[in-house]
Amino acid sequence: MEVINRYITIKNHVDGAPQDSDFELRFSPLSLFLDPASHEVIVKNLYLSIDPYQLNRMKSYSSSQQTSNYAVAITPGEDIDTYGVGKVVASGNPKFDKGHIVAGLLKWGEFTVVKPGGMLNKLDPMGFPLSYHVGILGFSGLTAYAGFFEVCKPKKGEKVFVSAASGSVGNLVGQFAKALGCYVVGSAGSKEKVALLKERLGFDDAFNYREETDLKSTLQRYFPDGIDIYFDNVGGDMQQAAVSNMNINGRIAVCGVISEYTDRENRAAPSMMDVIYKRLKIQGFLAGDYMKLFGDFLSTTCDHLRTGKIQPLEDISDGVESIPSALINLFRGQNIGKKIVRIAED
Amino acid sequence: MEVINRYITIKNHVDGAPQDSDFELRFSPLSLFLDPASHEVIVKNLYLSIDPYQLNRMKSYSSSQQTSNYAVAITPGEDIDTYGVGKVVASGNPKFDKGHIVAGLLKWGEFTVVKPGGMLNKLDPMGFPLSYHVGILGFSGLTAYAGFFEVCKPKKGEKVFVSAASGSVGNLVGQFAKALGCYVVGSAGSKEKVALLKERLGFDDAFNYREETDLKSTLQRYFPDGIDIYFDNVGGDMQQAAVSNMNINGRIAVCGVISEYTDRENRAAPSMMDVIYKRLKIQGFLAGDYMKLFGDFLSTTCDHLRTGKIQPLEDISDGVESIPSALINLFRGQNIGKKIVRIAED
Repeated sequence: MEVINRYITIKNHVDGAPQDSDFELRFSPLSLFLDPASHEVIVKNLYLSIDPYQLNRMKSYSSSQQTSNYAVAITPGEDIDTYGVGKVVASGNPKFDKGHIVAGLLKWGEFTVVKPGGMLNKLDPMGFPLSYHVGILGFSGLTAYAGFFEVCKPKKGEKVFVSAASGSVGNLVGQFAKALGCYVVGSAGSKEKVALLKERLGFDDAFNYREETDLKSTLQRYFPDGIDIYFDNVGGDMQQAAVSNMNINGRIAVCGVISEYTDRENRAAPSMMDVIYKRLKIQGFLAGDYMKLFGDFLSTTCDHLRTGKIQPLEDISDGVESIPSALINLFRGQNIGKKIVRIAED
Repeated sequence: MEVINRYITIKNHVDGAPQDSDFELRFSPLSLFLDPASHEVIVKNLYLSIDPYQLNRMKSYSSSQQTSNYAVAITPGEDIDTYGVGKVVASGNPKFDKGHIVAGLLKWGEFTVVKPGGMLNKLDPMGFPLSYHVGILGFSGLTAYAGFFEVCKPKKGEKVFVSAASGSVGNLVGQFAKALGCYVVGSAGSKEKVALLKERLGFDDAFNYREETDLKSTLQRYFPDGIDIYFDNVGGDMQQAAVSNMNINGRIAVCGVISEYTDRENRAAPSMMDVIYKRLKIQGFLAGDYMKLFGDFLSTTCDHLRTGKIQPLEDISDGVESIPSALINLFRGQNIGKKIVRIAED
């Protein structure tokens, strides 16, 4: 049997904010017959994770492409991989049977041919919707969990600031911090997001950074006793303002720098006097280094989901053709929570 | 008996680079008679440590004054404390007798009246010159030792970059790193200093940053395989260039930011993309937090001094009236090694 696989590529390198015209929907015939000796698996993609870091892979040059297996450069015209959940439709690999639900490195398209050695695992949904396994129970969740618990080493009662707090990772960091008994304030880019953080996710407070003119004073207002932990998803001015408001022995986990992704000159210049005298630690990290925590992360997060201590926050769009706008809108702050594209229901 | 104590104060707050006109030599009579119940001790100052951080204490405002017991603000006209070595000339404290050699918090002057509870300890010179106990065996030494071994967690064979490498702390970090078996390159501000690092202190290489126009390429040239550890004494452009050249899991110990001391706007804006993808740690620290290591530090350093593995590097000027120029010259890069003022021989 043969199908037409529709998939998304980039037409050119993307060095600023991504635009519709950077992307192309392509079609190619795909045979669903696999030689049993091929060890390949064909997956029908169901849910795909849409992540800001993909933009770094699309640039003509980014230091990220040199320094990490997690952000290998994307060549224009070639297919693009991402974390996702799907269903096996053909298998030449004895570990997988037709009908198996799987999670792993899939393509920005309707089908993925997973080569031998490709990242693919059978998925037990554990009673949760499949989309959860792309976000809150996938890498976004692990990023929040490892970054908060391992990098920041939080203690109950500490004061935690999260930027991009309604984003895929930020909303979870805030919820993990609340579950631990921290005081949590988040920043986001709209009134609607701020309301959601306070009313639905239980943040102690939140503010719309677009309404603030002096972030240093803003943070002083929200943290009169200083910040112990800053979970940084944005870099730039916000990081600089946070450093000024950190307490002694404060920790900053640098998870994302949206400010640098689309403009590499838009950088934070934090006061190193503060870094020294307050003995601050600024630590970059990647979730992929913490795979050994995946089991702990999963059981903790599932427990919190079952007891309602943590809410999933998903922003789902439909169909392969919605992938480009899903990515583009991340950089316009138009997502609320984890951005996911549902390629098919089943 | 009464003596005239000559001491140095500041006439005003000092907010830029310090100048001669900021300082004043004052005289005041001092009785050397102490009531045995006073618990005070009068110390004749012998060697005083001159340190860049004193400038932060002299500013009208510095965040360092708020965040640390180690950099309490100095009020113009009042006496100024510093680490030093002296000799007890009168004691109302049963722990100290006349003639004892002591180390602790002394004054920028000829005598110090140490109040009850003041930091003062009997000193065993262990066969080394007293000046060593102000520098290489004092806080400069502990700063280098704790910062390098505890903050950077070095491994044999790692590639280490030290800025201000002929300074009081930098020269020791380089020597500790060489003793451990690291590859070490230092930056300094003159040909003479560069030659000294390579020829006398055994650095693998060194360069004069004043002769370089693009520090990022400079570091690339000296570290074709990248930097594992950067011991940062200067901040600013050099930190930014170092971040670009760090290896995965690199560590940056932020010990000093000469660039910010005299101009708080002269800041580094390191790429947070690099910080994330290379999982860099940027950690500020103060030696005072590592007093528990003092014993280890002292025995290790004394051993290295006895076997000649480590050389002391001292820059000594004479007399209380030389204190202002000693501090001023630190910011002009005119010291080589630990800056010490010898107030009296004995």
